[in-house]
Amino acid sequence: MRFAKGHGTENDFVILPDPDGELDLTPAAVTALCDRRSGIGGDGVLRVIRTSVLDEELPEGVGSHTCPWFMDYRNADGSLAEMCGNGIRVFARYLRDSGLATERFLRIGTRAGAREVTLEEHGDVTVDMGPVEVDGPGSAVLDGSSLNGRVVSVGNPHLACEVRGGVDRIDLGEPPRLDPAQFPAGGNVEVFSQLEPGVLEMRVYERGSGETRSCGTGIVAAAAAATPRGEGATWRVRVPGGECVVFLDADGARLRGPAEIVAEGDTALV
Amino acid sequence: MRFAKGHGTENDFVILPDPDGELDLTPAAVTALCDRRSGIGGDGVLRVIRTSVLDEELPEGVGSHTCPWFMDYRNADGSLAEMCGNGIRVFARYLRDSGLATERFLRIGTRAGAREVTLEEHGDVTVDMGPVEVDGPGSAVLDGSSLNGRVVSVGNPHLACEVRGGVDRIDLGEPPRLDPAQFPAGGNVEVFSQLEPGVLEMRVYERGSGETRSCGTGIVAAAAAATPRGEGATWRVRVPGGECVVFLDADGARLRGPAEIVAEGDTALV
Repeated sequence: MRFAKGHGTENDFVILPDPDGELDLTPAAVTALCDRRSGIGGDGVLRVIRTSVLDEELPEGVGSHTCPWFMDYRNADGSLAEMCGNGIRVFARYLRDSGLATERFLRIGTRAGAREVTLEEHGDVTVDMGPVEVDGPGSAVLDGSSLNGRVVSVGNPHLACEVRGGVDRIDLGEPPRLDPAQFPAGGNVEVFSQLEPGVLEMRVYERGSGETRSCGTGIVAAAAAATPRGEGATWRVRVPGGECVVFLDADGARLRGPAEIVAEGDTALV
Repeated sequence: MRFAKGHGTENDFVILPDPDGELDLTPAAVTALCDRRSGIGGDGVLRVIRTSVLDEELPEGVGSHTCPWFMDYRNADGSLAEMCGNGIRVFARYLRDSGLATERFLRIGTRAGAREVTLEEHGDVTVDMGPVEVDGPGSAVLDGSSLNGRVVSVGNPHLACEVRGGVDRIDLGEPPRLDPAQFPAGGNVEVFSQLEPGVLEMRVYERGSGETRSCGTGIVAAAAAATPRGEGATWRVRVPGGECVVFLDADGARLRGPAEIVAEGDTALV
């Protein structure tokens, strides 16, 4: 089986080109591919499949004519996932580099709906992240102290917390405890500080994964929480794995950042 | 650049075929390749080079006629390494699978000298690990308690400790503290239990790396510490990453275990 490996701000993926949907991608195969020692290693698998041959109900707004390619995203544990702001950039970079797509403006199908993606001249990729909802205040308990922030939805739930004195002093070794009444299905927790006007630094604790080097929806959540209500804004957000730019307006958020394919080849694991 | 990825009991490596020594493999390139998110990922790099074109002084016993291939092994941090009992099995498997070697019995050059390797019929690989010295008792402090074992040299220093009640109850999250008078350059610490006659289970804390899923010299050290002085023995040793067999006699140790190539392709990282 052909594969590629790529990453966006060090959120990394095994890409499987399966245009005609011939691959029976079992959870066990995904787990084997993503194992970082006995496999290729990755945070997830991006199966590249034509929307027209997808063997599941098409999400609302995803048509095979408007979105010729579908991002079949699987978590490293084999479960299905809806959307990933870093993954879709890598997916788009792969479509373009492999010649499967020749346009710079793409509409890509995902389980969260269609996403507009732009391959920028300088190599970055910009993706429409959809609407962002900044709700009221919320808090988590971390290392015995209370961490206060804002509840933000970017399709998935976040608590985005501005902290004083920089993000490096925060210990994210243990999971922050969220209020189950406010986060019935759990959530991701971001800590961020403003470094200078228009520039944030951020770290993230991802639900089910622990601290990671980057999280696309988390970057958007922090930028939205840092923006005065009702205003548009552009933020550069630095995370441990690199830097992205978030554009916020009344329609929602767009996320721009790097996407790199580091290897391509054949694997016997699927 | 062509590459392969393989592992032996989940000790994993990026393999770079460079038969004619044309590659300038810098520490920075090794680090980039071994990064588990922005690179391909591995515990180290195995450069496959003809001994005749090696650009360094040949180790004692390594001649380009007797050992046509040399395992240029680099740690993930870019430093040079001498030998790796899991790495050399993967190296031999690659030589054979790629057609660079057609024999089942190979002599491979390493910085620790020549090593005899046998590709077994059933897929395992057996490697001559050289002499093993079991010295007197030693101890480490782990989690506030004293851990007693034997000092063993397999080219590199080990403290191999038989524990009661199974190895799972041991907390290897923190580094065991060795007596600096006994281990001036530090050492690896193994904990092992005998499960049944001829079968050990083992976990290992590797100097500079933390707990790992397997360590070839550590497996040999535990088997040697479990063997009555002056006797030969055969041990199956189970580690978190799989199982190996150790053959001990007056000449030293041989280690037999699995070696698997999981992917091959091209990378732009070197």
